[in-house]
Order: sequence, then C-alpha cells, then structure tokens
Amino acid sequence: MTATRVLLDESEIPTQWYNVVADMPNPPAPPLGPDGKPIGPEALAAIFPMALIEQEVSRERWIPIPEPVRSAYRLWRATPLHRAHRLEQALGTPAHIYYKYEGASPAGSHKPNTAVAQAYYNAQVGIRRLSTETGAGQWGSAIALAGQLFGIEVRVYMVRVSYEQKPFRRSLMETWGARVIASPSRSTNAGRAILERDPESPGSLGIAISEAVEEAASRADTNYSLGSVLNHVLLHQTVIGLEAKRQFEKIGEYPDAIFGCCGGGSNFAGVAFPFFADKAAGKKVRLVAVEPTSCPTLTRGNYAYDFGDTAGLTPLMLMYTLGHDFIPSRIHAGGLRYHGDSPLVSQLVHEGLVEAIAVPQLATFEAGVTFARTEGILPAPETNHAIRAVIDEALECKQTGEPRVLFFNLSGHGHFDMAAYDQYFRGELDDYELPEQEIAASLERLPKTG
Amino acid sequence: MTATRVLLDESEIPTQWYNVVADMPNPPAPPLGPDGKPIGPEALAAIFPMALIEQEVSRERWIPIPEPVRSAYRLWRATPLHRAHRLEQALGTPAHIYYKYEGASPAGSHKPNTAVAQAYYNAQVGIRRLSTETGAGQWGSAIALAGQLFGIEVRVYMVRVSYEQKPFRRSLMETWGARVIASPSRSTNAGRAILERDPESPGSLGIAISEAVEEAASRADTNYSLGSVLNHVLLHQTVIGLEAKRQFEKIGEYPDAIFGCCGGGSNFAGVAFPFFADKAAGKKVRLVAVEPTSCPTLTRGNYAYDFGDTAGLTPLMLMYTLGHDFIPSRIHAGGLRYHGDSPLVSQLVHEGLVEAIAVPQLATFEAGVTFARTEGILPAPETNHAIRAVIDEALECKQTGEPRVLFFNLSGHGHFDMAAYDQYFRGELDDYELPEQEIAASLERLPKTG
Repeated sequence: MTATRVLLDESEIPTQWYNVVADMPNPPAPPLGPDGKPIGPEALAAIFPMALIEQEVSRERWIPIPEPVRSAYRLWRATPLHRAHRLEQALGTPAHIYYKYEGASPAGSHKPNTAVAQAYYNAQVGIRRLSTETGAGQWGSAIALAGQLFGIEVRVYMVRVSYEQKPFRRSLMETWGARVIASPSRSTNAGRAILERDPESPGSLGIAISEAVEEAASRADTNYSLGSVLNHVLLHQTVIGLEAKRQFEKIGEYPDAIFGCCGGGSNFAGVAFPFFADKAAGKKVRLVAVEPTSCPTLTRGNYAYDFGDTAGLTPLMLMYTLGHDFIPSRIHAGGLRYHGDSPLVSQLVHEGLVEAIAVPQLATFEAGVTFARTEGILPAPETNHAIRAVIDEALECKQTGEPRVLFFNLSGHGHFDMAAYDQYFRGELDDYELPEQEIAASLERLPKTG
Repeated sequence: MTATRVLLDESEIPTQWYNVVADMPNPPAPPLGPDGKPIGPEALAAIFPMALIEQEVSRERWIPIPEPVRSAYRLWRATPLHRAHRLEQALGTPAHIYYKYEGASPAGSHKPNTAVAQAYYNAQVGIRRLSTETGAGQWGSAIALAGQLFGIEVRVYMVRVSYEQKPFRRSLMETWGARVIASPSRSTNAGRAILERDPESPGSLGIAISEAVEEAASRADTNYSLGSVLNHVLLHQTVIGLEAKRQFEKIGEYPDAIFGCCGGGSNFAGVAFPFFADKAAGKKVRLVAVEPTSCPTLTRGNYAYDFGDTAGLTPLMLMYTLGHDFIPSRIHAGGLRYHGDSPLVSQLVHEGLVEAIAVPQLATFEAGVTFARTEGILPAPETNHAIRAVIDEALECKQTGEPRVLFFNLSGHGHFDMAAYDQYFRGELDDYELPEQEIAASLERLPKTG
C-alpha cells in the first residue's frame, strides 16, 4: 500500500516563489493606459505598494518569501498531498489520482497564500486599510484573516448574489474583523451608476472590483488588494505547486497532467506554473485549466485587450475576455464567475502551452458528490470543475488501460456552499450554456486599442 | 523559533487504542438493568455488534486498531499539533499553549475517529443500517461519512433546535448519503410521547437517543451507534491523545495541564486519557474537563445511577447527571447539551483524578474570537469552552510568571456555527445560569436503584 497523504515539515515550506515569466517563450504583453500606451509601474502606485508592483513586472525566476509571510504560512502549511485511492477504486481506473488539499487553511481555501503576502507588503509601507472585492467569499475571507494577522483594517465589496446566498461567509469575514459591503453599493460612483441602471443587479466580480479600486484610489490611507488575475497574485500561489513537486519527489511519482479550476487564474497557476518550468525544459506534462460552460472565458472568449473591471478603472490587459460588462448567470461557480482571466494564463493558452476546457454545472456537482462519498472531503463548487475533468480523464484511462498520473488542486472545502449542494439535490440547478449571440454582443463592446 | 506545527507521518498513526480502565484505581461501576441488577454484555447485543460490546467491558490496556479503520484514519490523520505562538503573544503569557487540530477531518471534528471504527465493526457482522442521534450535527456528520465509507445506510435523529439552526449540517449529512430526521419525530413511540406533551419541543440529546435506540431495538437489520458517553466511544477517541504524546516527545515538551470541552465526554477523554496513564504512574499532570454553566453536569449534577436517554430505554449508568428528563436551554453549546456524562469521566471526577469546571457562554465566544483573530482557525462553540479555560489559565501564568505548558483539543472548526457567532456579535446571546431549584426538581425524578 503506497501512501495516502504525503506531508512536508514546516522547514520544507518554500523559501522562494516561482515566477513563470522567466520561463515563458515570449515576454508578457504590457498593460495599457487609457491612451492605449503601455503603462509603467508608477501608474499602479496609488493602489499597490512598490514591492508588489515590482513583483508584477519582475522577470526574475525566483522571488524570496519574507520570513513574516512564511511565519503566517506555518499556521496551516505545508498542505498535504493526498493520493485518492478510494476514488480510483470507485472509478475502477488504473490512473493514479493525487490532490493537494488547500482547504486546510483557516479560511478553507488556497486564497490566504497571497492574502498574507499582500497584507504583509502593505503593512510594511504603513498602509492600515485595504479595500477589495469578493465573489463567493473565499477571497474576502482570506484577506480578512490576513488583515487581522498583520494589523490592517479590511473592507470587502461582496458580489450581491453571493452576499445573499452565503451569509455565513460574511459572518466569517466579520469574525476576523472585516467590514463587508454588498456590491453594487451606494458608497461608490461605480456602484451607484450600476444601481441606477438596474436596482436589482446581482452584481459581478467586475463591478465589485470597480468599487474597491475606486475606494482605494480616492483615499490616501487605503490600498487595493486583488485575489486573482494579476501576476503577483499568481506568483504567491506557486507555493502550492512548489510544495507538490517536493511531495511527488518523495514518493517517486510525477504527474502526466495537472488540473486546476480557473476563474481569475490564481488557483490554476498556483498548482501548475511550477511544473511549467519543467515543461519549458522539455519535460512532457499537460497543464489543464478547467472553467464553467456558463462563463467560458478561455474556451469561447476573445484574446484581446480589455479592462479588468466593469467601470473601466483598471489598465487594459491582454487576456481572454467575454467583455468587461459581461454579467455571468447566477450559477454557483462562485469565484469562476469572472469576465476575464489572468493575462499570464491567457497568454500560455493562446500560445498552446496550457490547455483549457469547459465543463457543465450538473456534471461538476455529480463529480463533487462522488468525491465526497469516496475521499470524505466535500469540495467547494469551484473545485468540482477540476474534479470533473480529472474523473473524465481517469475514466478515459480505464478505457485505454493507461496508468496516467493525474494531479489537481483541491482548492477549497465546500462547508460554506451547502446551499448550492442542496439546490443540486433538489434538482434546482441546470446546465446553462452561454448563447453565442450573447458572447458576440458583449465582445462588440470591447475597448478599441488602435 | 520553535515549531508551529508538529506533524506525524501516517506510519505513526497509533496501531492500538488506549483503555483507561486498565489504569483506574477502582473498576468501573457496572451498568444496571431495569431490575436494578448489573447487566451482562448480552443485554446490549440487540443494538451493538459483539466487538464493540467486548470493548465496552474490556480491562485490557491496549486494543488493536483494525487495518481498515487505520486506512480510513489515513484520509485525515495524524492531525497536527499546533503551538499557539500568536495567541501566547496576544495574551502576553509565559505559558506555552498547544492544541491538537481535530477540525482537519472531512466532517470538521474529532467525531469520525469513533464513527469509522463503529461503522467498520457493524459492517463486519453484516449490519447494513445504523440509527443514531446528533445534537449540533458533528456526530451525525461523522457517522454519515463513516457509513458511506463502509457501505452502511445511516439514519440520524437530529435535535430539532439544531435541525432548525443548522440546515447546512443536515445538507452535509445528506451529501454523504444519510437520512436526517428532526427529533422529536412522529416515527417512534418515544418521539410521539414527547410531542403529545409538548408539540413545540426543541428536542434534546436524551430524546433523540431514545428515538434512535427504539428504532435499532425494533428492527433486526439495524444497529445503534452512539457518538459519546460509552466506554468504547471514548476508547476510539484516544488516538488523539496518543498522537499528541508522540508529538510532544518529538519536541521535548510535556503538558502541565490538559483541557477538553465536555458534554458526553468523548472529546475530553480522547485527548486526556492517554496522559492519565502517566498520571497513574505518578507523573504530575492535570486533566481538566470544561462544561457550560447552562448545562453543568459534572460541576452541579448528582453522582448517581440514571438513564442515558429521556424515555429510559438505556441501561442505568453511574454518572454525573442533571436527571434524564432535563431539557437544557437553547444555548449554542451544541453537543455539550447533555443531561449526563460518560461514566468513566464521571468516576474519575468523583475520585478527584480529573478536574471539572464550568464556564459561561459569552466568555466562551469571546475566547473563540480571540483565538480566531490570532491563530486563524475559527473554532466550534463547543471547543470555545476549552479555549476559555486555557486563556484563563494562561492569564494566571502571566500573573505568576510561570511558563506552564497548556494543551487542549481543538475538537472542531466552527464553519457550520456562523449563525451562533452572528448572534454573539449582535448581542443576542446571554449567560444563562441554571437555577438551583430547576436542578433539584430534575434530580428528584432520578430513578430509584435500591
């Protein structure tokens, strides 16, 4: 019997983050300002500390992790690497299925990996207040926790549909001392503009980002903090994949394919990018980003310059996008409901180095229930997307007899998502496929960049 | 900097449970039948498999853990031992505070430790159906998970007040395939009798036990499963303390005092009993059971023979009790709302070998919030009782300058208890102290045993 869980001692927590830019065949496309010209780091200084801006544009392969951040990591890291023996048996597959369990963090997801880093760098330059947005609440919980650990007040704009569906996520953030505001709100220009057009707006990540950015840009004591998409956020998440590589070494395995659910991209990048280094060096390993068919950014969006938020307050970024004013359906993919995607992940998909697939909602819940009933852990709905893809691949291995090694990030537990599971069991969810004309209409409104 | 988390490899998961009876100065008092005479093991055979009955009466010090149970343990065990550096700093105490994190299990508490053992032994003898009760839902979740892992159908009678306050606990049990019934229910004689007297009955653990026992006793295909109180349940939980002893050895520390919250007693016993072996051998170590002032079984109950359930279906057990028809107030101490207590824990308290203290509700939530804001993990309300006691002791150390080593079991996370935290923050909770006359009246109704 091979191991069920592979652990690392806290001395083995990585001391450096891995920057994928160093190994990409082409440099990342620069973000553009309102004039369509590349912006410099100074344009971001109003809302980010310089250390994070430097990471955003760095081409260094390795970035040291400050000791206070590693000290915070030690509260829950290193996370275990699990072999899914019982899932394999239930599927009757020759595949070896592994998962990294990031739900072990106090916030129940991978998000604190970057939250504590961002809180640390902001605290270092004397910032006492952070504004941010959250979709399903995973990111808001993480930054609430991190703010508490580094003595920073946190204000979270929470997408209204999640605010209503997940009151306990709000309570969790409040227990860690954060202030939570349903978005769109009346406290910002961006929020008021949306509410005038649609007083019943369910909100979106794009709107919530506009509100949080506006608050940070208009107050000298306040910085902004983002839970995904940006290069420095993806960088911090690489602790996941770096630990996993060491764990695989310990047991003498190496994944053939790595899966992560993908909304803004930080979860996927966190688990996959450290393996990209090997891929760039010639190793055969597939990296697969999995998104919902209801918000199919990578698989059906345009690769184009677009804003990161709805109001157009952010720089323009080259990425796969459904259009910055796209409002996704009220599905339960939570954090995967984002119109755009990480520019780094987008570029690697565009260059054929990362695969992207989309899976429908009902099949993801079915996968999550199968997983819970075999492995015990009840996954977050976002994570179920990766599990669906892994199960499909494992069933393919059953057909072909190939003992492929499949690895995914179990990015969060679903203990705050039971209402969605309830709806699934009551048959109240369905498979929403975004109509072609809706995508086309939204893409027509993409900003023109010369 | 000393370690933050001390881990054990899965090969270090204990291979034997520790039976405290072997080291108790006096043999446990026997359970009595309806006739007031000691009952033999055969009286329990209608609802328990023989392997568990043997463990219930065993005097062997070590009981082997079957390999299929250890295999299930490997899904989440060994659990980490944490040093609470940040809590210590916040309190300014010279005490060393340690906690074992049992919330790391898929069900979010320590309860699966015995659930998987009970499911295994029942499956071994061909039982395909288990009935049980649950208070706050921790036990029900654990046995739902365990039933799923060992192919057993599970029916959970859930105390109505919790059923209503914690719908997501129900969803969790259902995701693992269990059937959940609000108790008192109309499906048993015991339930119907209560509802006739009080159609609005909030239920109690005692009532729910009556219903579950009645169902098991009246169906040949169904056995009963209990989440605390009984000797074999406490036995299975000793994996917690056994792992902790090994973890303390690794870092060269040893606790001066060990704390566990105490309702039925299995959480406290699980963490404390393995250290009782050392205490019996002359080592100085304090074992402290912490209960709520609103349900003060050990601190204000009678040490007397009483039923384990409300309807009087169980054998009579010698224990601290508030009277088997005692219905605790609607506080949020969840699983601590039980009229009785483990006979083993009760006897050790009665003989002065284990200390018992009671703490009021508001102070427990305050302690839980302090813990969440320093250590990150948000504890279950039950666990907050132990944390309160530890913080009080650590503050005493601050006065005296003593660097005592304090250790408690963080028996569960509070992600399903956010409604209670909400109520705390909104000022809707209070400190209920049970009136003396209420205890006296309830104790007058204790069964007479000659």
